[in-house]
Amino acid sequence: MSELFVRTLREDPADAEVASHRWLVRGGYVRRVAPGIYTWLPLGLRVLENVERIVREEMAAIGGQELRFPALLPREPYEATNRWTEYGDGIFRLHDRKGGDYLLGPTHEEMFTLAVKDMYNSYKELPLTLYQIQTKYRDEPRPRAGIMRGREFVMKDSYSFDIDEAGLAASYARHRDAYRKIFDRLGFEYVIVRAMSGAMGGSQSEEFLAVSPVGEDLFARSPGGYAANVEAVELAPPDPVPFDDAPAAHVEDTPDSPTIETLVAVANERVPRTDRPWTAADTLKNVVFMITRPGQEPEPLAIGLPGDREVDTKRLEAQLGEGVAYAPFADEDFARHPDLVKGYIGPGVLGAENASKITYLVDPRVATGTRWVTGADAAGRHVFDLVAGRDFTPDGVIEVAEVRTGDPAPDGSGPLELARGIEMGHVFALGTKYADALGLQVLDENGKLATVQMGSYGIGVSRAVAVVAEGTSDEKGLCWPRELAPFDLQIVATGKDAAVLDKATELARELDEAGVRVLLDDRKASPGVKFADAELLGMPTTVVVGRGLADGVLEVRDRRTGMSENVAVDDALGHLLALVHGRTDAETA
Amino acid sequence: MSELFVRTLREDPADAEVASHRWLVRGGYVRRVAPGIYTWLPLGLRVLENVERIVREEMAAIGGQELRFPALLPREPYEATNRWTEYGDGIFRLHDRKGGDYLLGPTHEEMFTLAVKDMYNSYKELPLTLYQIQTKYRDEPRPRAGIMRGREFVMKDSYSFDIDEAGLAASYARHRDAYRKIFDRLGFEYVIVRAMSGAMGGSQSEEFLAVSPVGEDLFARSPGGYAANVEAVELAPPDPVPFDDAPAAHVEDTPDSPTIETLVAVANERVPRTDRPWTAADTLKNVVFMITRPGQEPEPLAIGLPGDREVDTKRLEAQLGEGVAYAPFADEDFARHPDLVKGYIGPGVLGAENASKITYLVDPRVATGTRWVTGADAAGRHVFDLVAGRDFTPDGVIEVAEVRTGDPAPDGSGPLELARGIEMGHVFALGTKYADALGLQVLDENGKLATVQMGSYGIGVSRAVAVVAEGTSDEKGLCWPRELAPFDLQIVATGKDAAVLDKATELARELDEAGVRVLLDDRKASPGVKFADAELLGMPTTVVVGRGLADGVLEVRDRRTGMSENVAVDDALGHLLALVHGRTDAETA
Repeated sequence: MSELFVRTLREDPADAEVASHRWLVRGGYVRRVAPGIYTWLPLGLRVLENVERIVREEMAAIGGQELRFPALLPREPYEATNRWTEYGDGIFRLHDRKGGDYLLGPTHEEMFTLAVKDMYNSYKELPLTLYQIQTKYRDEPRPRAGIMRGREFVMKDSYSFDIDEAGLAASYARHRDAYRKIFDRLGFEYVIVRAMSGAMGGSQSEEFLAVSPVGEDLFARSPGGYAANVEAVELAPPDPVPFDDAPAAHVEDTPDSPTIETLVAVANERVPRTDRPWTAADTLKNVVFMITRPGQEPEPLAIGLPGDREVDTKRLEAQLGEGVAYAPFADEDFARHPDLVKGYIGPGVLGAENASKITYLVDPRVATGTRWVTGADAAGRHVFDLVAGRDFTPDGVIEVAEVRTGDPAPDGSGPLELARGIEMGHVFALGTKYADALGLQVLDENGKLATVQMGSYGIGVSRAVAVVAEGTSDEKGLCWPRELAPFDLQIVATGKDAAVLDKATELARELDEAGVRVLLDDRKASPGVKFADAELLGMPTTVVVGRGLADGVLEVRDRRTGMSENVAVDDALGHLLALVHGRTDAETA
Repeated sequence: MSELFVRTLREDPADAEVASHRWLVRGGYVRRVAPGIYTWLPLGLRVLENVERIVREEMAAIGGQELRFPALLPREPYEATNRWTEYGDGIFRLHDRKGGDYLLGPTHEEMFTLAVKDMYNSYKELPLTLYQIQTKYRDEPRPRAGIMRGREFVMKDSYSFDIDEAGLAASYARHRDAYRKIFDRLGFEYVIVRAMSGAMGGSQSEEFLAVSPVGEDLFARSPGGYAANVEAVELAPPDPVPFDDAPAAHVEDTPDSPTIETLVAVANERVPRTDRPWTAADTLKNVVFMITRPGQEPEPLAIGLPGDREVDTKRLEAQLGEGVAYAPFADEDFARHPDLVKGYIGPGVLGAENASKITYLVDPRVATGTRWVTGADAAGRHVFDLVAGRDFTPDGVIEVAEVRTGDPAPDGSGPLELARGIEMGHVFALGTKYADALGLQVLDENGKLATVQMGSYGIGVSRAVAVVAEGTSDEKGLCWPRELAPFDLQIVATGKDAAVLDKATELARELDEAGVRVLLDDRKASPGVKFADAELLGMPTTVVVGRGLADGVLEVRDRRTGMSENVAVDDALGHLLALVHGRTDAETA
């Protein structure tokens, strides 16, 4: 400890929002260099390498072969898949001295696809699983929480290559299984949720979320086992509602009712229902956005949804896809579209076939036969008993309405509850998206060219360090699971008696020779400082060599439980070896 | 082998200039992505990791602590040391989404200095040695020879921090020693040469060059043990020559003598010596360059040297320092400096004190008292018996004249021979250059602030893979030393007999269980193809399981010597274990 390059801090860093960030900086594990860019100090690097080792072991177990692509990549392959444009500001771009365009790789689908295309040409060579553990780069708009969401970070990304969909399904299942083992070993609570595939393309996609109140991802789960990222919750297509007995639509004066709240009040006053009062859920709210796709002019998009729900912007972003910007419809936009009456927009003008020509997508709840109160495209007027599929036909369906606690799970498995998580892993059945774009084909059994089926699988390796720290730390500091700890145990020598330091040093040497990773606190500091640092640094076990030595005993403390026991000096070595090796025999070689 | 992601090539890659590049690509070890940017395929990555392991072991042995700085770095620290500018086009620069300036780290002196400044404050915490093994970036003007000179590459860089110069000397010596051990283990011929420190600053500096005809570095060595990079060869300051008996300088007509060759001819014809003919070595050649320092206007620099020597541009670059551009004095430059008469420039107009005001530096051989034939600053006229220190006084000395085989070693240890080498390591005693620039001070024994003495030490880790391949490959392919080989041995099963593949598989399994790293060639390919691939891939030992099996024997081949021996099947396991473990017990765990 007197030689280790570490300095513990008594104060929280000013920018620390979450526990893991606070303790990793205070414990001297990481250090900020720039927003979202961190140095791994010796203790932090050891934890990072422990995560990497676990990932490598489980990837090897499913036949993954490790290689390493460059981080500095030429533009062309990313141009071929359109991601050079799609990523927008999300990647770091640069020129070399000859003016060539390069990027810092955010993910490597293109490179893996091209490597296999370059080297393989027959189904006989498949299946194949390749992976790398590599430093990656994304120019996050909001880097946060230390290493949890960085701009330079370490990822394991792997890719599977199969001759057909059945092969892809098997590769996907193998990876999913390996990920379960990895996250079980890392030792945090996680949930596997359906996910949107975003810029990755492809079909099946699941995320491994570490359950955590500080997570940025919101997910929904039901008692019956449904679990999905809120972006990926898809309502079951509702059955059409019969509308033969529905009265004809009728327009009513509803003065001063530009909001849902005012509309409900005015409707109940001027056009009351007989059976029950109008509620927000009876109204059809039409929200217009200006959408900018990469390289295109902004264009409006109208979305209709029940008036009691807001548009969830994260769900909207997921539907629009990476690199697509959106903005509220502003006054100048209204000026350019006189058909649209602010506060009273209705399906009468919306849709590619109608006056405004604005694409009109609706929430699945706006199913055929449902009746609505909605804008009549004139100030102070609304239309009642407007029936979807009879009086108006939207251009399509879009899933952007907020998901709420208590909503029924789409699969009928009960009411949803919402919780927060941190994305730790992602498995994608890409299908042929990249193979098509880059021409990856091999000869099949019949000697014909077949497009290779790919999967893509990622784990946030550096993020895992933060997530484990977040989940295990307490009010005293870090508290590592043994398999991730930088050291198996920390020996604290207290007091000024030379015999104490001698004994501590001897014990450290004996343990070291037996393959135990020991951190000896040999500093000239008070016992209080040493104990506080041991708790802050968070090795699973602390051995106190101090006052008890005169009576022939050492104290062995468990960081997690806080329990301590006295152990006879003569038994200490055996006791500690059993403690370290007994619990995790494999990891202390 | 049937599952390994590798594809051997029968043809040399078009851009391969050197053997290592050819074989590493043909053997499926690396693959080019862009100029100077390569992918490490599974076999290559294994070799790279073996090099990293050796480096880590020896760094740990001298107390080095590993950490990892980011590769993406903010501009400010490099601005503080002026390297942001000095590196010129040699680094990759980029902006983030907010317009902030970043670079991809070419070397990390600044970051290490700031980290220690951030965390340490007392001499008691020194000495300290920190290192990282990291991907680094330089925008090389001429990336070449595959991974030998790349733009993205892996380096080990370490830094020592000491309270005084004696401490720095000890740290430097420790590193030098560790480097000898590392390069001895890597197993190539190397020489330690004096080096220029270039943009690094600092005082003492040595390079570890792998001796190789394809090296880009030229070095000079003497039988008595002198060795230096030609850039760093410094002549011993010559003794002044007495000139009391020298005649006065006299200008002579030397028509049509703008070159040294024509001058010597004209002089011998019109102004003959009595003792011997004039030679080029009697003439003083004055060469003018336009020099552009970063951020400054170009300005001329005149260099005087004996007419029988050329300016060595690499030595000139080394003297000018990184980021300084130079160009020959062009016709338009002469037009702007009418004092300079092309082909007849002499010390009469050169020098800060003379008409042209152009700085005038001379080769050390132009010592006080030496007499010269040189330009008289008029077309067709030269001045004879011009004595340095009597008739002209240069502004200083510069070491840019070419070094030649047979030149005396500066330390008197005999005639120099020139050879080529590849820079594999560099040790620098930086002194206080970076600590001064970035304010790294700690309290000394007397409680006073002292500036920390730093050393900087680098090893080209990815380059080492190329250098070993270059030195060990032969006309059949790669030939790895056991400690670096991706596998200890390759088992080749030949023939169609099922018993052969069964036996080979069984042997592979047994060896694997005994900790030997085995590559089993189980492909359905001809023995010829398999043997050729085994030689190309270059594992130290090949075991042939084939025709001999019927007689109860296997063949064991040594890749390096080409020798083979038959081994009884029953003895094979023991024999191979002895072969692998006996030679290098430590590396096969």
